[in-house]
Amino acid sequence: MIDRLIERIAETQNPTVAGLDPKLDYVPDFIKAEMFEKYGETLKAAAKALLAFNKGLIDALCDVVPAVKPQCAYYEMYGYHGVKTLYKTIAYAKKKGMLVITDGKRNDIGTTMEAYAMAHLGALSLGGEAVEPFGGDALTVNGYLGSDGITPLLKICKERDKGIFVLVKTSNLSSGELQDRLVDGKPVYQLMGEMCEAWGSELAGKYGYSSVGAVVGATYPKQLEELRVKLPHTFFLVPGYGAQGGGAADAAGAFDSRGLGAIVNSSRGIICAYRKEGCPETDYAGAARREALRMKEDLLSQIGTIRLD
Amino acid sequence: MIDRLIERIAETQNPTVAGLDPKLDYVPDFIKAEMFEKYGETLKAAAKALLAFNKGLIDALCDVVPAVKPQCAYYEMYGYHGVKTLYKTIAYAKKKGMLVITDGKRNDIGTTMEAYAMAHLGALSLGGEAVEPFGGDALTVNGYLGSDGITPLLKICKERDKGIFVLVKTSNLSSGELQDRLVDGKPVYQLMGEMCEAWGSELAGKYGYSSVGAVVGATYPKQLEELRVKLPHTFFLVPGYGAQGGGAADAAGAFDSRGLGAIVNSSRGIICAYRKEGCPETDYAGAARREALRMKEDLLSQIGTIRLD
Repeated sequence: MIDRLIERIAETQNPTVAGLDPKLDYVPDFIKAEMFEKYGETLKAAAKALLAFNKGLIDALCDVVPAVKPQCAYYEMYGYHGVKTLYKTIAYAKKKGMLVITDGKRNDIGTTMEAYAMAHLGALSLGGEAVEPFGGDALTVNGYLGSDGITPLLKICKERDKGIFVLVKTSNLSSGELQDRLVDGKPVYQLMGEMCEAWGSELAGKYGYSSVGAVVGATYPKQLEELRVKLPHTFFLVPGYGAQGGGAADAAGAFDSRGLGAIVNSSRGIICAYRKEGCPETDYAGAARREALRMKEDLLSQIGTIRLD
Repeated sequence: MIDRLIERIAETQNPTVAGLDPKLDYVPDFIKAEMFEKYGETLKAAAKALLAFNKGLIDALCDVVPAVKPQCAYYEMYGYHGVKTLYKTIAYAKKKGMLVITDGKRNDIGTTMEAYAMAHLGALSLGGEAVEPFGGDALTVNGYLGSDGITPLLKICKERDKGIFVLVKTSNLSSGELQDRLVDGKPVYQLMGEMCEAWGSELAGKYGYSSVGAVVGATYPKQLEELRVKLPHTFFLVPGYGAQGGGAADAAGAFDSRGLGAIVNSSRGIICAYRKEGCPETDYAGAARREALRMKEDLLSQIGTIRLD
């Protein structure tokens, strides 16, 4: 997975991932009106509106942004209809050549993680066929339960060329309440980062990074820089750019000298760009594309041209 | 929520929750055959088989077991069809008078936790009606992100009489890799437990416990006993009984002198009881009931009669 992601980042010269966190509030009225007219003001209509919104975004972004990151919470909020939209969004993004990082932050004991691994990265054998329940390329996970909550994922990652991103230092204000506490003189986030390096040793890719990545927020630029040095084989998924307050300079420390090592997420910044820009809402996808290109230039101004060698 | 749960435990004199973790492998052949014939060998058929299996279990358990705990992973494994079965299972269990603890171990930053809170404990306003996306009574969560990943849940818990259970000391073998590490001389699990006490102060119930509970495994009886003393207002959800190796004596430390303070989960032990018992598979629900009653006697032999005063 990590090699596919890195190659796509180099092709597009864009180390960003578009977070698809489509609350109904963010969806333009003309889409909502159409779906409410067809299906009534129901969860089904809401879910159909989210899907139409997402498809427009994916069409506008797929040649300039390497990956999307649908956040499960925003689909679960619309019940099983919303979860069907998650499935269809993943399928559509893949059809358009994008990589998909399913943002579920799943975690549990080993037997249960086998089920999550199967759900989000695996395929069931049914009726003589391999059926992917969701079909993402990577899944975000939480390592609070330790190794036996992570190893079932590694098996499927290896067999099916998939990846995971483990929460290390999250972007939110209170992340330090646990993550910054010191264990034998080291913060908890560093301990978690070291586990990522260990878990990733089985999943090394050809550009120096493994398919076990880490989530490290742009809102903590010092820690980001420090972890880049301490975790040389761990690719970073960096939230916190844009709406959460992080800028390109804050994210810069996540990258190595080739401009590799990280992918920066923006969700509301991209999908709600039409509001900030003030363009007609029918041009919401165009605004998303313009914002994604602006963000790309913003990041490249800090890290230079992205090179594979 | 916690008062409703405690009262139902006292009524049934049973501090157990049945974990509904229905892998297709666990479902009796006669149910699978019926659904495969109707819908082909598809995810839809698998999801319908899980629902039929669950309904049989709920019918057999609803007057002797106070609550069920569907594990989200086993539903997501069957795609959005499986997630529809999760929704229908929750609705059916509630109709039959059971409390529902949705086991999702969800976690994220604040704005995203608002979406998860809405999904699993809240209701959306759509077409002038309040629509519950999933409708559980409580949700398991992971506190790795600290307070601002938990507080959005407390608001909905207060408004709608719901609850959460935060991972503190999990039942799996490697839980100690992070959770047992010392921070200022205290293990991480204790730190997390103290946060539960703090978060719960706003959600106190009338029996001394709050609607912010903790997950503490029966596989670590010493820590369970220690935490019962240190976290006097935190109700425990105790996994690890049965298939994971914990016995009633291991779980006993989770209870106070009234026999309150905890609810012990058994998943495979109950739902796969027909295999262990060797009865005809058409009697799978009867076997589940017999195992639930055996487990009840096993627990009561340790803690005595459950009293509310």
